Amino acid sequence: MSPPSTQHDASLNEVHWFTEAHQPSGSSIGFRTEQLLHSEKTSFQTIEIHQTTDWGNLMVIDGCVMLTSRDNFFYHEMMTHPALFTHARAKQVVIIGGGDCGTLREVLRHEEVEHVVQVEIDERVTRLAEEYFPELCEANDDPRAELLFIDGIKYMAECEPESVDLIIVDSTDPVGPAEGLFNAAFYASCFKALRHSGLLVQQSESPLVHLDLIKSMRSAMRTTGFTAVKTLPFPQPCYPTGWWSCTMARRDGELSGFRERGALSKKFPTRYYNAEIHKAALVAQPEFMREALGE
Amino acid sequence: MSPPSTQHDASLNEVHWFTEAHQPSGSSIGFRTEQLLHSEKTSFQTIEIHQTTDWGNLMVIDGCVMLTSRDNFFYHEMMTHPALFTHARAKQVVIIGGGDCGTLREVLRHEEVEHVVQVEIDERVTRLAEEYFPELCEANDDPRAELLFIDGIKYMAECEPESVDLIIVDSTDPVGPAEGLFNAAFYASCFKALRHSGLLVQQSESPLVHLDLIKSMRSAMRTTGFTAVKTLPFPQPCYPTGWWSCTMARRDGELSGFRERGALSKKFPTRYYNAEIHKAALVAQPEFMREALGE
Repeated sequence: MSPPSTQHDASLNEVHWFTEAHQPSGSSIGFRTEQLLHSEKTSFQTIEIHQTTDWGNLMVIDGCVMLTSRDNFFYHEMMTHPALFTHARAKQVVIIGGGDCGTLREVLRHEEVEHVVQVEIDERVTRLAEEYFPELCEANDDPRAELLFIDGIKYMAECEPESVDLIIVDSTDPVGPAEGLFNAAFYASCFKALRHSGLLVQQSESPLVHLDLIKSMRSAMRTTGFTAVKTLPFPQPCYPTGWWSCTMARRDGELSGFRERGALSKKFPTRYYNAEIHKAALVAQPEFMREALGE
Repeated sequence: MSPPSTQHDASLNEVHWFTEAHQPSGSSIGFRTEQLLHSEKTSFQTIEIHQTTDWGNLMVIDGCVMLTSRDNFFYHEMMTHPALFTHARAKQVVIIGGGDCGTLREVLRHEEVEHVVQVEIDERVTRLAEEYFPELCEANDDPRAELLFIDGIKYMAECEPESVDLIIVDSTDPVGPAEGLFNAAFYASCFKALRHSGLLVQQSESPLVHLDLIKSMRSAMRTTGFTAVKTLPFPQPCYPTGWWSCTMARRDGELSGFRERGALSKKFPTRYYNAEIHKAALVAQPEFMREALGE
């Protein structure tokens, strides 16, 4: 028997893993952790921050992986740049959810954006992101950014008609607080709030295991009046199946093209997104998705 | 306390998971299992077959996930169809590894293929695939298929010069028996065995965590004399990071185009691959890969 180790030694010798067992898909994803940096129960949910050995910090909400420092760039870039390079000039942007501020940062890289409202229900998500993911929050003080901590469903229902160019729904899974963000009533609020040529983009889970959800989202968007709908898949290692998607809907007009020259000459850095990735996500649908979505 | 349950009840009530903790990336992937169907130690490795709740059967070799019934189509289609629709007419094909026979099945979907040799070191992998993944083995009796159970490195070293159109290296990770498949000596054997316009395609791990390996493979391929090299990423939920790649090298000529009309009018079903997916994998490189690989 070795003598009791100090706390420091123990943390070095013991190997811990945080694992999310995703019941609907019968699969799990985990990360090797060094320590639990923070844990709290807010009015809405339980938030944990882990320090991992290889993925930077990890935010977990109610047992579900939200993001890691290392791989959030896939998600944040694909939730923003395709939509912003599709819209001719998105001046007014609303983010529903997105409390880690990574989506906000990417939106603010676009000079044409004049005002972004981030509507996150749980202020603690943002406060913890400021502490543990400061790189994602570096644009929070941009004078164009407005951070609200209120209910996004209510915000959209009361939003001034035809006042927004782009709505980005950067939420948790469609259970619990986020459930009301995946139905026709919410899409109708968004539709009403959008200006001519306005866009809605929403995270739409894994194309491999959530195809029924994707179909029902797309159907509800079309029923609401959106004239074009596109689902863009992208890699996302920390989410179930390691493969994720966003679904984009346009109030009027098409979604087949985008401002390709703008994307080619973009003045900001990205790690996943570029003009070719954008084009590929639009036109290269895996065969089983093409068949299921009728594209 | 409930009374002791029957064996059947127990298997329903107990929840088991097989989890692969991937040490180099500090991440893990797991599947909920119903039962261990088979386990054996062969002369080369330990092979397990699990029945999962949502992913069909799962093959594990030395603790590493090899494939599941549900998601192997990504890998097998991307290891074969891009290369076969790049070559003008691949008649002679060699598969190194590939014991589960999924790659063999996809190769044999191409009518121009006259002969395929599958060189798997461990016959037990194929025998177990026949039993637990029969759909992958449905082409094993094709008269064009030849199954050898010998060392692939030796096979390629002794292969008749300029006798092969396409070599597919469908191996485990570059540790243990497969280590010798990721170096210049092996690539030189392949180069010598290839005919004019011949192609080599090799699984090349995760673009997110194995970029150094990908770089060294590409560099060794070029040093060997291959004139063009391309790395194609694709989703692969059951492998570390859920994102994988294959690297293609051409003995002479370019790799920028492919037989697009052939891919568009293919006479066999696929679930991931199609002409647009092929084009996208060729031209749409994530920004960090473009920068790292200098493309």
